[in-house]
Amino acid sequence: MYPLNETHDPALQSWVESAQQPGTDFPIQNLPFAVLRRRGTPEPFRGGVAIGDQVLDLAAVLRSGALQGQGELVQAALQAGAQSSLNALMALGAPAWSALRLALSRALRQGSALQTGLQGCLLAQSEAEYALPARIGDYTDFYTSIHHATNVGKLMRPDNPLLPNYQWVPIGYHGRASSVIVSGQPFKRPQGQIKPPDAATPLLAATRRLDFELELGAYIGPGNALGEPIALAAAEQQVFGLSLLNDWSARDLQAWEYQPLGPFLGKNFATTVSPWVLTLEALAPYRAPLERSSDDPAPLPYLDSAYNRLHGALDIELEVALQTPRMREQGMEAATLVRSNSRHSYWTLAQMVAHHSVNGCNLQPGDLLGTGTLSGPQPQQAGALIELTLGGRQPLTLPNGEVRTFLEDGDTVWLRGCCQRPGVARIGFGECAGTVLPARA
Amino acid sequence: MYPLNETHDPALQSWVESAQQPGTDFPIQNLPFAVLRRRGTPEPFRGGVAIGDQVLDLAAVLRSGALQGQGELVQAALQAGAQSSLNALMALGAPAWSALRLALSRALRQGSALQTGLQGCLLAQSEAEYALPARIGDYTDFYTSIHHATNVGKLMRPDNPLLPNYQWVPIGYHGRASSVIVSGQPFKRPQGQIKPPDAATPLLAATRRLDFELELGAYIGPGNALGEPIALAAAEQQVFGLSLLNDWSARDLQAWEYQPLGPFLGKNFATTVSPWVLTLEALAPYRAPLERSSDDPAPLPYLDSAYNRLHGALDIELEVALQTPRMREQGMEAATLVRSNSRHSYWTLAQMVAHHSVNGCNLQPGDLLGTGTLSGPQPQQAGALIELTLGGRQPLTLPNGEVRTFLEDGDTVWLRGCCQRPGVARIGFGECAGTVLPARA
Repeated sequence: MYPLNETHDPALQSWVESAQQPGTDFPIQNLPFAVLRRRGTPEPFRGGVAIGDQVLDLAAVLRSGALQGQGELVQAALQAGAQSSLNALMALGAPAWSALRLALSRALRQGSALQTGLQGCLLAQSEAEYALPARIGDYTDFYTSIHHATNVGKLMRPDNPLLPNYQWVPIGYHGRASSVIVSGQPFKRPQGQIKPPDAATPLLAATRRLDFELELGAYIGPGNALGEPIALAAAEQQVFGLSLLNDWSARDLQAWEYQPLGPFLGKNFATTVSPWVLTLEALAPYRAPLERSSDDPAPLPYLDSAYNRLHGALDIELEVALQTPRMREQGMEAATLVRSNSRHSYWTLAQMVAHHSVNGCNLQPGDLLGTGTLSGPQPQQAGALIELTLGGRQPLTLPNGEVRTFLEDGDTVWLRGCCQRPGVARIGFGECAGTVLPARA
Repeated sequence: MYPLNETHDPALQSWVESAQQPGTDFPIQNLPFAVLRRRGTPEPFRGGVAIGDQVLDLAAVLRSGALQGQGELVQAALQAGAQSSLNALMALGAPAWSALRLALSRALRQGSALQTGLQGCLLAQSEAEYALPARIGDYTDFYTSIHHATNVGKLMRPDNPLLPNYQWVPIGYHGRASSVIVSGQPFKRPQGQIKPPDAATPLLAATRRLDFELELGAYIGPGNALGEPIALAAAEQQVFGLSLLNDWSARDLQAWEYQPLGPFLGKNFATTVSPWVLTLEALAPYRAPLERSSDDPAPLPYLDSAYNRLHGALDIELEVALQTPRMREQGMEAATLVRSNSRHSYWTLAQMVAHHSVNGCNLQPGDLLGTGTLSGPQPQQAGALIELTLGGRQPLTLPNGEVRTFLEDGDTVWLRGCCQRPGVARIGFGECAGTVLPARA
C-alpha cells in the first residue's frame, strides 16, 4: 500500500550516531513510536520515536517548535503524538502518519538544519520507562498460522487436525484488553481449574502448563462506524502499525474450559506487548507474497485481491528466547528456542481487518489485533511450547542442560523481530520481555 | 449482601406522584441510574435517577446544592454520578452507592424539605435521550443457565447435550465492547460467511438466522488489580448493578465460525443494553436460593459459600416481546414470546466475578458481564429463538397469524424485567428495545 520513498533509502544516515550502529533495531529508516517517560520520575507519559539508542521525545519536539512550518498535517500529527497515548495519532489516519514520518526522517538526517533544535529533545532508551502505546478499547486475537493450527489440532485430533472452516474463515476471538501489559512487567503464574486426565473432578491450582505464544500485534487507526464494513482494499489504511505480542497461555486451564465458547481464563491473566510500534510504511520494503499451495481454496471475494496475493504478507523474522533463573545465575544469555517468520501466515493483516468488520463490527483507534501464534512450516519454527514439546511429551534441553516442557517460575521469555533483505535497511522491533512470578500464595 | 433498610420500606411514597402509579417500574424503592440528556439538544450527557415517569438530573442536583450537608460520601457520589458516564460512580464502591441511595430516598420522599429545591432538577423520561451507562472497557458474556446450555447442546449433541465442564466452570468468553449499544438504537442485519449444510463451500450473505438472547448485564464497581483475585465473599461488592441485555446472535455465522475459538462475528455486530442500572441494594429484597438438584456436584470451594447457596440467586421476572412491521401497521402491541426468571441460573453473579478473577484477571469500573441467555426449565421459558423453534424447525405463530423462525427486517424486540413479591415494592428495569434494519445493500 505504501510506495517506497526517500524515508526508506538505505543510504540515509542520522546525526544521532547510534542509529548507524550495525545491528541496531532503530536506524533512521525505522522511526517506530512508543509512549514513555524518564524512568523513576513522575513526568507525564508522552509519545516518542526511536532513533539508534535514543528516543526523540515528541512532547519536547512540540514545545521546541522545531517542526513548525512543516505544514498542518505534521503539526496535527505531532500534537497527537505528544499525548499520553497514541490513540489520537492513530485516529488521524495514514496521510498524517506519513507526513510526520517524512518530517522526522528529514529532521533526523545528517546535515539537517534542525539538529541543534532537536538535540535537547533526545532521551536515552536506557533511561526510559514505557507505557502501553495505546488505550486498548478491544483486543482481538486471530489464528492466522495454518502451521500452528495444524500442530495444535494434531495434539487433539491426530487424524483430522485442521477444521473445515480454517481455509475459509480468518478465525479470531475476543481477548481481554485490561490485562494487556507492556514489556518488562512481570506477572504471577495464574491459578485456575485444572482437570487432570485421571481425576474424576477438577481442582483449583496454579497452572502447570504455562506457555508463551509468538505473535505480532496490530494497532487500529481511524476505524469504521458500526454497520459499515471495511473493504479489503482499504483495510491496510486502518492499521497504524505492528509490535510484538506474547499471548501467555495456561494450557491446562484452557483445555478444561474452552468448550464450547473458546479460551477465557487460560489466556486473560496477561498478554505482553513490546513498547515500539513499527508503522506499515516503515515495513513497506518487506512485503511478501502470500504462501499458498495449489490445493488451497481461493478465498471468498471479500478476502481476495491481487495485491493481497502478491504483497499481502510481511517478511518479518521472529524469535523466542528463554532465560531461566539458573542461566541468569550462571551469567548465560537467553537461549533461542524458536526462529520463525510472519510470511508463513495463512491470512494477512488486510484479511484480518476486512473479515473482522464484514458483519459491521466497529473497530476503533487503538484497538489491538493479535495475529495468533506465528509458527512456520518447520518443527523448530513452532511458536509455542505446546507445539515444540508435542503437548509436553518431549522436553526441550537448554544449553546448560536444564530441561523445560512448560515455563517455570523465574523464567524470562523474550520475543524479538527484525526485517532484513539485501539492499534494504535492516529494521527491528526491539524486545518484548516478560518474567513469570510465583503463583499467589 | 445488602441488609434491608429504610430505602426498601414498601410504604414509602414520593412527592413525585407518578412514582406511586400502579405498575410503574420506578417507585422510590428502586432509584436506578442512567446517563442521559434532553433529546434533540446538544446538552452534555449526565447521570440521572429514575423516579416514576421522571428523571432526577444529578448534574442539576449537584448545581442546586440541595444535597450539601449530607456528608462527604454523598457529595463524592453525587459529583461522580453527575458526569457523562457512571464509571467514576462505579469506581467509588458500595459505601458511596449506598450513601447516595439513602440521601436520594430521603430527598424524594413525601414531606422532604428538599422538594422545592429538587423540583427544578426533574426531567420527563419521555423527553430523555440515553447514552450507555458506562464506558465499557471489557465485556464478558457468561453461559449461566443450565437450561439454555442443555437446550442448545441438544440441537448439536442430542445424546450428550451438557459438556462435562458445565457444572464445574462458570463458562464465559470475551465479547466485543465497541458494539454495545443502548436501547432504541437500531442495527443492520449483519452479513458474514454462511455454510449451508448441503453446500460444498461457504458464501458471503446476510444472516438468515438472526436471533435475540435474553440476558442480564452486570456493571463492575471498583474492580481488582492484575494478579489479585476477588474472593467469592467480596464479589458482590464489585457489582454496581444490573440492566437488561440482548445478545443479538447470527446463528448461521456462529455455527460456521465457532470452532475452535468460540463466537466472534456471529455476536459482535451489536449487543443492546437497557439504559437503567438497578443497584444490587435495590434488588436486596429479591434474593433467592440457588436452584440445585441433589445430583449436582458441589462447586469447588472458591465458588461455594452458605450465603451463595441460600441467597446467591435473584428473583427477577423476565420477558421477551416481539412486534413485527405488520403488527405495527395493524396497531397491535408486541406479543410476548418468552417469560423466564433469572433465579433459574446455575451460576450466580458472585460466582461469575470470583471465577473471572481467580486467575488474576483484572476487572475495572464499568466493565460489563452478561449472564448468558436466562432460559428457565420450561420450554416457554427459553430465552432465544433457536431454543423456542428447536433450531428453526418449529416456527412460532404470532397472534396475528404471522410465523417466525428467526427475526425479519423491521422486527422490534423488547426485553423487560421486574421484581415483585408480596409485601415488597415492585421494581422494574424499564425497556431494552432494538429494531432490525435491512442488511447493507
